[in-house]
Amino acid sequence: MPRCVAAFSGGLDSTVLAYHLRAEGWDLVLLSVDYGQRHRREIDAAAALAVELASPHHVVHVEGLGKLLTGSALTDERVRVPHGHYTSRSMRVTVVPNRNAILLSLAAAVAIAQSAQAIASAVHAGDHAIYPDCRPEFIAAYEQAVRIGNQGLGGDDFRVLSPFLGVAKSGIVRAGHALGVPFARTWSCYEGGEHHCGRCGTCVERKEAFAEAGVADPTVYEDIRPCS
Amino acid sequence: MPRCVAAFSGGLDSTVLAYHLRAEGWDLVLLSVDYGQRHRREIDAAAALAVELASPHHVVHVEGLGKLLTGSALTDERVRVPHGHYTSRSMRVTVVPNRNAILLSLAAAVAIAQSAQAIASAVHAGDHAIYPDCRPEFIAAYEQAVRIGNQGLGGDDFRVLSPFLGVAKSGIVRAGHALGVPFARTWSCYEGGEHHCGRCGTCVERKEAFAEAGVADPTVYEDIRPCS
Repeated sequence: MPRCVAAFSGGLDSTVLAYHLRAEGWDLVLLSVDYGQRHRREIDAAAALAVELASPHHVVHVEGLGKLLTGSALTDERVRVPHGHYTSRSMRVTVVPNRNAILLSLAAAVAIAQSAQAIASAVHAGDHAIYPDCRPEFIAAYEQAVRIGNQGLGGDDFRVLSPFLGVAKSGIVRAGHALGVPFARTWSCYEGGEHHCGRCGTCVERKEAFAEAGVADPTVYEDIRPCS
Repeated sequence: MPRCVAAFSGGLDSTVLAYHLRAEGWDLVLLSVDYGQRHRREIDAAAALAVELASPHHVVHVEGLGKLLTGSALTDERVRVPHGHYTSRSMRVTVVPNRNAILLSLAAAVAIAQSAQAIASAVHAGDHAIYPDCRPEFIAAYEQAVRIGNQGLGGDDFRVLSPFLGVAKSGIVRAGHALGVPFARTWSCYEGGEHHCGRCGTCVERKEAFAEAGVADPTVYEDIRPCS
Protein backbone atom coordinates (compact mmCIF):
# COMPACT_ATOMS: atom_id res chain seq x y z
CA MET A 1 0.00 0.00 0.00
CA PRO A 2 1.56 3.36 -0.96
CA ARG A 3 2.18 5.69 1.98
CA CYS A 4 1.34 9.38 2.17
CA VAL A 5 2.05 12.00 4.85
CA ALA A 6 -0.90 14.40 4.87
CA ALA A 7 -0.79 17.88 6.36
CA PHE A 8 -3.70 17.60 8.75
CA SER A 9 -5.02 20.47 10.82
CA GLY A 10 -8.27 18.91 11.98
CA GLY A 11 -10.10 21.51 9.95
CA LEU A 12 -12.83 20.78 7.45
CA ASP A 13 -10.60 20.72 4.36
CA SER A 14 -7.79 18.53 5.63
CA THR A 15 -10.20 16.10 7.29
CA VAL A 16 -12.05 15.56 4.02
CA LEU A 17 -8.60 15.19 2.40
CA ALA A 18 -7.69 12.42 4.84
CA TYR A 19 -10.94 10.52 4.25
CA HIS A 20 -10.48 10.98 0.49
CA LEU A 21 -6.92 9.63 0.54
CA ARG A 22 -7.92 6.69 2.71
CA ALA A 23 -10.70 5.85 0.25
CA GLU A 24 -8.12 6.02 -2.55
CA GLY A 25 -6.08 3.33 -0.81
CA TRP A 26 -3.25 5.35 0.72
CA ASP A 27 -1.55 4.25 3.94
CA LEU A 28 -1.98 7.54 5.81
CA VAL A 29 0.33 9.30 8.24
CA LEU A 30 -1.27 12.50 9.58
CA LEU A 31 0.92 15.46 10.48
CA SER A 32 -0.26 18.54 12.37
CA VAL A 33 2.03 21.54 12.60
CA ASP A 34 1.49 23.97 15.45
CA TYR A 35 3.39 27.09 14.48
CA GLY A 36 2.06 29.18 17.33
CA GLN A 37 -1.28 29.98 15.78
CA ARG A 38 -4.10 31.07 18.05
CA HIS A 39 -6.45 28.21 17.23
CA ARG A 40 -4.66 25.39 19.07
CA ARG A 41 -8.12 23.92 19.50
CA GLU A 42 -7.49 22.55 15.98
CA ILE A 43 -4.77 20.22 17.24
CA ASP A 44 -7.17 18.56 19.70
CA ALA A 45 -9.73 18.11 16.96
CA ALA A 46 -7.02 16.61 14.75
CA ALA A 47 -5.98 14.07 17.39
CA ALA A 48 -9.58 12.90 17.91
CA LEU A 49 -10.18 12.60 14.17
CA ALA A 50 -6.97 10.60 13.72
CA VAL A 51 -8.31 8.03 16.19
CA GLU A 52 -11.49 7.85 14.10
CA LEU A 53 -9.35 7.37 10.96
CA ALA A 54 -7.14 4.79 12.74
CA SER A 55 -4.08 6.58 11.32
CA PRO A 56 -0.90 7.56 13.16
CA HIS A 57 -0.96 11.25 14.03
CA HIS A 58 2.08 13.36 14.82
CA VAL A 59 2.35 16.96 15.94
CA VAL A 60 5.37 19.10 15.19
CA HIS A 61 5.59 22.32 17.18
CA VAL A 62 7.37 25.26 15.61
CA GLU A 63 8.22 27.56 18.50
CA GLY A 64 9.52 31.09 18.21
CA LEU A 65 8.32 31.73 14.66
CA GLY A 66 5.09 33.51 15.51
CA LYS A 67 6.71 36.51 17.16
CA LEU A 68 8.90 37.03 14.09
CA LEU A 69 5.87 37.18 11.80
CA THR A 70 4.55 40.52 12.96
CA GLY A 71 1.56 41.63 11.01
CA SER A 72 -0.27 38.30 10.89
CA ALA A 73 -3.50 38.04 12.88
CA LEU A 74 -2.95 34.30 13.39
CA THR A 75 0.18 34.72 15.43
CA ASP A 76 0.37 38.35 16.50
CA GLU A 77 -1.84 39.10 19.48
CA ARG A 78 -1.93 42.79 18.62
CA VAL A 79 -3.62 42.23 15.29
CA ARG A 80 -7.38 41.72 15.44
CA VAL A 81 -8.85 38.67 13.69
CA PRO A 82 -11.01 40.16 10.94
CA HIS A 83 -14.73 39.44 11.16
CA GLY A 84 -17.22 38.94 8.39
CA HIS A 85 -16.55 37.97 4.82
CA TYR A 86 -12.98 37.59 3.72
CA THR A 87 -11.97 40.26 1.32
CA SER A 88 -8.59 40.81 -0.23
CA ARG A 89 -7.96 43.44 2.39
CA SER A 90 -9.18 41.81 5.60
CA MET A 91 -7.91 38.35 4.69
CA ARG A 92 -4.45 39.62 3.93
CA VAL A 93 -3.71 39.95 7.65
CA THR A 94 -4.36 36.23 8.10
CA VAL A 95 -1.42 35.40 5.83
CA VAL A 96 1.47 33.56 7.47
CA PRO A 97 4.02 34.05 4.74
CA ASN A 98 5.35 30.86 3.19
CA ARG A 99 3.16 28.80 5.54
CA ASN A 100 2.41 26.12 2.99
CA ALA A 101 6.10 25.74 2.14
CA ILE A 102 6.88 25.21 5.84
CA LEU A 103 4.09 22.65 6.21
CA LEU A 104 5.07 20.80 3.05
CA SER A 105 8.78 20.84 3.96
CA LEU A 106 8.12 19.29 7.37
CA ALA A 107 5.74 16.75 5.85
CA ALA A 108 8.29 15.85 3.18
CA ALA A 109 11.02 15.30 5.78
CA VAL A 110 8.77 12.87 7.66
CA ALA A 111 7.68 11.24 4.40
CA ILE A 112 11.21 10.60 3.16
CA ALA A 113 12.30 9.29 6.58
CA GLN A 114 9.27 7.00 6.78
CA SER A 115 9.53 5.73 3.18
CA ALA A 116 6.34 7.42 2.01
CA GLN A 117 5.90 8.20 -1.67
CA ALA A 118 3.84 11.35 -1.30
CA ILE A 119 2.73 14.25 0.83
CA ALA A 120 -0.71 15.76 0.61
CA SER A 121 -2.21 19.18 1.12
CA ALA A 122 -5.85 20.30 1.27
CA VAL A 123 -5.25 23.56 -0.60
CA HIS A 124 -8.33 24.48 -2.61
CA ALA A 125 -9.55 26.94 -5.19
CA GLY A 126 -10.91 29.37 -2.59
CA ASP A 127 -7.41 29.95 -1.22
CA HIS A 128 -5.85 31.05 -4.48
CA ALA A 129 -6.71 34.73 -4.51
CA ILE A 130 -5.02 35.61 -1.23
CA TYR A 131 -2.49 32.86 -0.53
CA PRO A 132 0.03 32.57 -3.37
CA ASP A 133 1.48 29.42 -1.80
CA CYS A 134 -1.89 27.69 -2.28
CA ARG A 135 -1.90 28.12 -6.07
CA PRO A 136 -1.27 25.34 -8.60
CA GLU A 137 1.94 27.06 -9.76
CA PHE A 138 3.38 26.88 -6.26
CA ILE A 139 2.41 23.25 -5.70
CA ALA A 140 4.06 22.32 -9.02
CA ALA A 141 7.21 24.33 -8.22
CA TYR A 142 7.42 22.87 -4.74
CA GLU A 143 6.96 19.30 -6.01
CA GLN A 144 9.85 19.92 -8.40
CA ALA A 145 12.03 21.30 -5.58
CA VAL A 146 11.28 18.43 -3.19
CA ARG A 147 12.09 15.85 -5.87
CA ILE A 148 15.42 17.50 -6.62
CA GLY A 149 16.14 18.01 -2.93
CA ASN A 150 15.67 14.34 -2.11
CA GLN A 151 17.19 12.66 -5.14
CA GLY A 152 18.58 9.27 -4.26
CA LEU A 153 16.80 9.33 -0.89
CA GLY A 154 13.53 8.09 -2.33
CA GLY A 155 12.37 11.48 -3.50
CA ASP A 156 12.91 11.09 -7.24
CA ASP A 157 9.27 10.30 -8.04
CA PHE A 158 7.89 11.99 -4.98
CA ARG A 159 4.43 13.48 -5.36
CA VAL A 160 2.66 16.42 -3.75
CA LEU A 161 -1.00 15.43 -3.79
CA SER A 162 -3.53 18.26 -3.79
CA PRO A 163 -6.78 16.75 -5.05
CA PHE A 164 -8.84 19.85 -4.14
CA LEU A 165 -6.60 22.34 -5.93
CA GLY A 166 -9.35 23.17 -8.43
CA VAL A 167 -12.28 22.54 -6.09
CA ALA A 168 -14.29 25.19 -4.20
CA LYS A 169 -14.89 24.70 -0.47
CA SER A 170 -18.50 23.73 -1.19
CA GLY A 171 -17.15 20.93 -3.41
CA ILE A 172 -15.02 19.73 -0.48
CA VAL A 173 -18.16 19.66 1.70
CA ARG A 174 -19.97 17.59 -0.95
CA ALA A 175 -17.00 15.19 -1.23
CA GLY A 176 -16.84 14.87 2.55
CA HIS A 177 -20.56 14.24 2.78
CA ALA A 178 -20.26 11.39 0.27
CA LEU A 179 -17.34 9.94 2.27
CA GLY A 180 -19.21 10.10 5.60
CA VAL A 181 -16.81 12.63 7.17
CA PRO A 182 -17.86 13.50 10.76
CA PHE A 183 -18.02 17.24 10.04
CA ALA A 184 -19.11 18.15 13.56
CA ARG A 185 -15.74 17.03 14.88
CA THR A 186 -13.71 19.23 12.57
CA TRP A 187 -12.53 22.65 13.71
CA SER A 188 -12.21 25.74 11.51
CA CYS A 189 -12.62 28.81 13.72
CA TYR A 190 -9.68 31.21 14.04
CA GLU A 191 -10.87 32.45 17.44
CA GLY A 192 -10.21 29.24 19.36
CA GLY A 193 -13.24 29.45 21.71
CA GLU A 194 -15.45 26.68 23.11
CA HIS A 195 -17.62 26.62 19.97
CA HIS A 196 -17.11 28.00 16.47
CA CYS A 197 -17.61 31.77 16.76
CA GLY A 198 -19.62 31.96 13.54
CA ARG A 199 -18.24 35.45 12.85
CA CYS A 200 -14.61 35.17 11.77
CA GLY A 201 -13.73 34.82 8.11
CA THR A 202 -13.21 31.08 8.23
CA CYS A 203 -16.50 30.47 10.11
CA VAL A 204 -18.35 32.53 7.52
CA GLU A 205 -16.66 30.53 4.76
CA ARG A 206 -17.57 27.29 6.50
CA LYS A 207 -21.25 28.25 6.82
CA GLU A 208 -21.36 29.33 3.19
CA ALA A 209 -19.71 26.15 1.96
CA PHE A 210 -22.38 23.97 3.63
CA ALA A 211 -25.14 26.24 2.33
CA GLU A 212 -23.77 26.19 -1.22
CA ALA A 213 -23.23 22.42 -1.10
CA GLY A 214 -26.79 21.84 0.11
CA VAL A 215 -25.44 19.76 2.99
CA ALA A 216 -26.79 20.18 6.54
CA ASP A 217 -24.20 21.98 8.67
CA PRO A 218 -23.82 20.17 12.03
CA THR A 219 -21.47 22.85 13.42
CA VAL A 220 -22.40 24.58 16.70
CA TYR A 221 -21.88 28.30 16.17
CA GLU A 222 -21.98 30.92 18.91
CA ASP A 223 -23.37 33.39 16.38
CA ILE A 224 -26.12 31.62 14.47
CA ARG A 225 -27.14 34.43 12.14
CA PRO A 226 -27.20 33.14 8.57
CA CYS A 227 -24.71 34.54 6.08
CA SER A 228 -25.89 37.87 4.74
CA MET B 1 20.28 48.82 2.76
CA PRO B 2 18.87 45.52 1.42
CA ARG B 3 17.89 43.04 4.11
CA CYS B 4 18.70 39.33 4.19
CA VAL B 5 17.69 36.55 6.58
CA ALA B 6 20.62 34.14 6.85
CA ALA B 7 20.34 30.57 8.10
CA PHE B 8 22.92 30.69 10.85
CA SER B 9 23.98 27.69 12.89
CA GLY B 10 27.04 29.21 14.54
CA GLY B 11 29.14 26.71 12.60
CA LEU B 12 32.16 27.60 10.52
CA ASP B 13 30.35 27.85 7.18
CA SER B 14 27.37 29.96 8.21
CA THR B 15 29.55 32.27 10.32
CA VAL B 16 31.78 33.02 7.34
CA LEU B 17 28.57 33.49 5.32
CA ALA B 18 27.35 36.10 7.80
CA TYR B 19 30.63 38.04 7.73
CA HIS B 20 30.66 37.79 3.93
CA LEU B 21 27.10 39.16 3.62
CA ARG B 22 27.82 41.95 6.06
CA ALA B 23 30.89 42.93 4.02
CA GLU B 24 28.69 42.93 0.91
CA GLY B 25 26.44 45.52 2.54
CA TRP B 26 23.42 43.42 3.58
CA ASP B 27 21.34 44.34 6.62
CA LEU B 28 21.53 40.94 8.31
CA VAL B 29 18.94 39.02 10.33
CA LEU B 30 20.36 35.76 11.66
CA LEU B 31 18.11 32.74 12.10
CA SER B 32 19.03 29.54 13.92
CA VAL B 33 16.77 26.54 13.70
CA ASP B 34 16.95 23.94 16.44
CA TYR B 35 15.21 20.89 15.06
CA GLY B 36 16.17 18.65 17.95
CA GLN B 37 19.70 17.93 16.79
CA ARG B 38 22.24 16.72 19.31
CA HIS B 39 24.64 19.62 18.95
CA ARG B 40 22.63 22.33 20.71
CA ARG B 41 26.00 23.78 21.65
CA GLU B 42 25.79 25.33 18.18
CA ILE B 43 22.91 27.57 19.23
CA ASP B 44 24.96 29.07 22.07
CA ALA B 45 27.87 29.69 19.70
CA ALA B 46 25.44 31.32 17.26
CA ALA B 47 24.06 33.70 19.91
CA ALA B 48 27.55 34.83 20.95
CA LEU B 49 28.62 35.36 17.33
CA ALA B 50 25.47 37.38 16.60
CA VAL B 51 26.47 39.80 19.37
CA GLU B 52 29.91 40.10 17.70
CA LEU B 53 28.19 40.78 14.36
CA ALA B 54 25.75 43.23 15.99
CA SER B 55 22.91 41.56 14.10
CA PRO B 56 19.52 40.46 15.45
CA HIS B 57 19.49 36.72 16.11
CA HIS B 58 16.39 34.59 16.39
CA VAL B 59 15.98 30.92 17.24
CA VAL B 60 13.11 28.83 15.98
CA HIS B 61 12.64 25.50 17.72
CA VAL B 62 11.09 22.67 15.78
CA GLU B 63 9.89 20.20 18.41
CA GLY B 64 8.66 16.70 17.73
CA LEU B 65 10.30 16.28 14.34
CA GLY B 66 13.41 14.42 15.48
CA LYS B 67 11.60 11.36 16.72
CA LEU B 68 9.82 11.01 13.38
CA LEU B 69 13.11 10.98 11.49
CA THR B 70 14.30 7.58 12.61
CA GLY B 71 17.53 6.63 10.96
CA SER B 72 19.32 9.98 11.28
CA ALA B 73 22.27 10.11 13.69
CA LEU B 74 21.65 13.80 14.34
CA THR B 75 18.29 13.29 15.95
CA ASP B 76 17.97 9.59 16.79
CA GLU B 77 19.79 8.71 20.00
CA ARG B 78 19.99 5.06 18.94
CA VAL B 79 22.12 5.77 15.89
CA ARG B 80 25.84 6.29 16.55
CA VAL B 81 27.50 9.42 15.15
CA PRO B 82 30.00 8.06 12.60
CA HIS B 83 33.66 8.77 13.30
CA GLY B 84 36.50 9.40 10.88
CA HIS B 85 36.24 10.60 7.31
CA TYR B 86 32.84 11.06 5.83
CA THR B 87 32.14 8.51 3.17
CA SER B 88 28.95 8.07 1.22
CA ARG B 89 28.05 5.28 3.58
CA SER B 90 28.89 6.71 7.00
CA MET B 91 27.71 10.22 6.15
CA ARG B 92 24.38 9.03 4.87
CA VAL B 93 23.19 8.49 8.47
CA THR B 94 23.75 12.20 9.20
CA VAL B 95 21.12 13.14 6.61
CA VAL B 96 18.03 14.87 7.96
CA PRO B 97 15.84 14.56 4.90
CA ASN B 98 14.69 17.83 3.41
CA ARG B 99 16.56 19.74 6.12
CA ASN B 100 17.62 22.56 3.87
CA ALA B 101 14.08 23.00 2.57
CA ILE B 102 12.82 23.31 6.17
CA LEU B 103 15.55 25.83 7.03
CA LEU B 104 14.96 27.88 3.90
CA SER B 105 11.17 27.79 4.33
CA LEU B 106 11.38 29.13 7.87
CA ALA B 107 13.93 31.75 6.82
CA ALA B 108 11.74 32.82 3.90
CA ALA B 109 8.69 33.22 6.17
CA VAL B 110 10.67 35.52 8.45
CA ALA B 111 12.17 37.34 5.47
CA ILE B 112 8.82 38.06 3.83
CA ALA B 113 7.32 39.18 7.15
CA GLN B 114 10.27 41.45 7.87
CA SER B 115 10.46 42.94 4.37
CA ALA B 116 13.77 41.30 3.50
CA GLN B 117 14.67 40.76 -0.14
CA ALA B 118 16.69 37.57 0.30
CA ILE B 119 17.53 34.54 2.38
CA ALA B 120 21.00 33.05 2.51
CA SER B 121 22.43 29.59 3.01
CA ALA B 122 26.02 28.45 3.55
CA VAL B 123 25.68 25.31 1.43
CA HIS B 124 29.00 24.53 -0.23
CA ALA B 125 30.55 22.20 -2.77
CA GLY B 126 31.58 19.63 -0.17
CA ASP B 127 27.94 18.97 0.71
CA HIS B 128 26.81 18.07 -2.78
CA ALA B 129 27.68 14.39 -2.93
CA ILE B 130 25.58 13.34 0.06
CA TYR B 131 22.99 16.04 0.59
CA PRO B 132 20.85 16.51 -2.51
CA ASP B 133 19.19 19.56 -0.95
CA CYS B 134 22.58 21.31 -0.90
CA ARG B 135 23.07 21.11 -4.69
CA PRO B 136 22.76 24.03 -7.11
CA GLU B 137 19.73 22.40 -8.76
CA PHE B 138 17.86 22.39 -5.46
CA ILE B 139 18.73 25.97 -4.58
CA ALA B 140 17.52 27.10 -8.02
CA ALA B 141 14.30 25.06 -7.74
CA TYR B 142 13.64 26.31 -4.23
CA GLU B 143 14.24 29.94 -5.24
CA GLN B 144 11.69 29.48 -7.99
CA ALA B 145 9.17 27.94 -5.55
CA VAL B 146 9.60 30.66 -2.93
CA ARG B 147 9.13 33.41 -5.53
CA ILE B 148 5.93 31.80 -6.80
CA GLY B 149 4.75 31.08 -3.27
CA ASN B 150 5.10 34.70 -2.18
CA GLN B 151 3.97 36.56 -5.27
CA GLY B 152 2.48 39.91 -4.38
CA LEU B 153 3.80 39.63 -0.81
CA GLY B 154 7.22 40.96 -1.76
CA GLY B 155 8.55 37.62 -2.97
CA ASP B 156 8.47 38.24 -6.71
CA ASP B 157 12.17 39.06 -6.99
CA PHE B 158 13.16 37.19 -3.89
CA ARG B 159 16.65 35.70 -3.90
CA VAL B 160 18.20 32.66 -2.27
CA LEU B 161 21.85 33.64 -1.78
CA SER B 162 24.36 30.80 -1.63
CA PRO B 163 27.73 32.39 -2.38
CA PHE B 164 29.67 29.23 -1.40
CA LEU B 165 27.71 26.85 -3.60
CA GLY B 166 30.74 26.17 -5.79
CA VAL B 167 33.34 26.64 -3.04
CA ALA B 168 35.11 23.89 -1.08
CA LYS B 169 35.22 24.15 2.72
CA SER B 170 38.91 25.16 2.51
CA GLY B 171 37.83 28.08 0.33
CA ILE B 172 35.34 29.11 3.02
CA VAL B 173 38.17 29.05 5.58
CA ARG B 174 40.29 31.27 3.31
CA ALA B 175 37.37 33.68 2.81
CA GLY B 176 36.72 33.77 6.55
CA HIS B 177 40.40 34.39 7.29
CA ALA B 178 40.40 37.38 4.93
CA LEU B 179 37.24 38.71 6.63
CA GLY B 180 38.66 38.35 10.14
CA VAL B 181 36.11 35.73 11.26
CA PRO B 182 36.70 34.65 14.89
CA PHE B 183 36.94 30.97 13.97
CA ALA B 184 37.61 29.83 17.55
CA ARG B 185 34.07 30.90 18.50
CA THR B 186 32.36 28.83 15.81
CA TRP B 187 31.08 25.36 16.59
CA SER B 188 31.05 22.41 14.19
CA CYS B 189 31.19 19.20 16.26
CA TYR B 190 28.24 16.80 16.05
CA GLU B 191 28.99 15.34 19.49
CA GLY B 192 28.09 18.46 21.48
CA GLY B 193 30.80 18.09 24.19
CA GLU B 194 32.78 20.80 26.00
CA HIS B 195 35.33 21.01 23.19
CA HIS B 196 35.26 19.85 19.57
CA CYS B 197 35.77 16.05 19.70
CA GLY B 198 38.17 16.03 16.76
CA ARG B 199 36.89 12.61 15.68
CA CYS B 200 33.42 12.98 14.18
CA GLY B 201 33.02 13.54 10.46
CA THR B 202 32.47 17.26 10.75
CA CYS B 203 35.50 17.76 13.07
CA VAL B 204 37.68 15.84 10.61
CA GLU B 205 36.34 18.00 7.78
CA ARG B 206 37.01 21.15 9.80
CA LYS B 207 40.62 20.15 10.52
CA GLU B 208 41.20 19.29 6.88
CA ALA B 209 39.71 22.55 5.65
CA PHE B 210 42.13 24.61 7.77
CA ALA B 211 45.06 22.41 6.70
CA GLU B 212 44.14 22.70 3.01
CA ALA B 213 43.58 26.44 3.29
CA GLY B 214 46.96 26.95 4.97
CA VAL B 215 45.23 28.86 7.79
CA ALA B 216 46.12 28.22 11.45
CA ASP B 217 43.28 26.30 13.13
CA PRO B 218 42.46 27.90 16.50
CA THR B 219 39.97 25.15 17.44
CA VAL B 220 40.48 23.25 20.70
CA TYR B 221 40.05 19.54 19.89
CA GLU B 222 39.83 16.76 22.46
CA ASP B 223 41.52 14.44 19.97
CA ILE B 224 44.47 16.34 18.52
CA ARG B 225 45.81 13.68 16.16
CA PRO B 226 46.31 15.20 12.70
CA CYS B 227 44.16 13.94 9.86
CA SER B 228 45.55 10.69 8.45
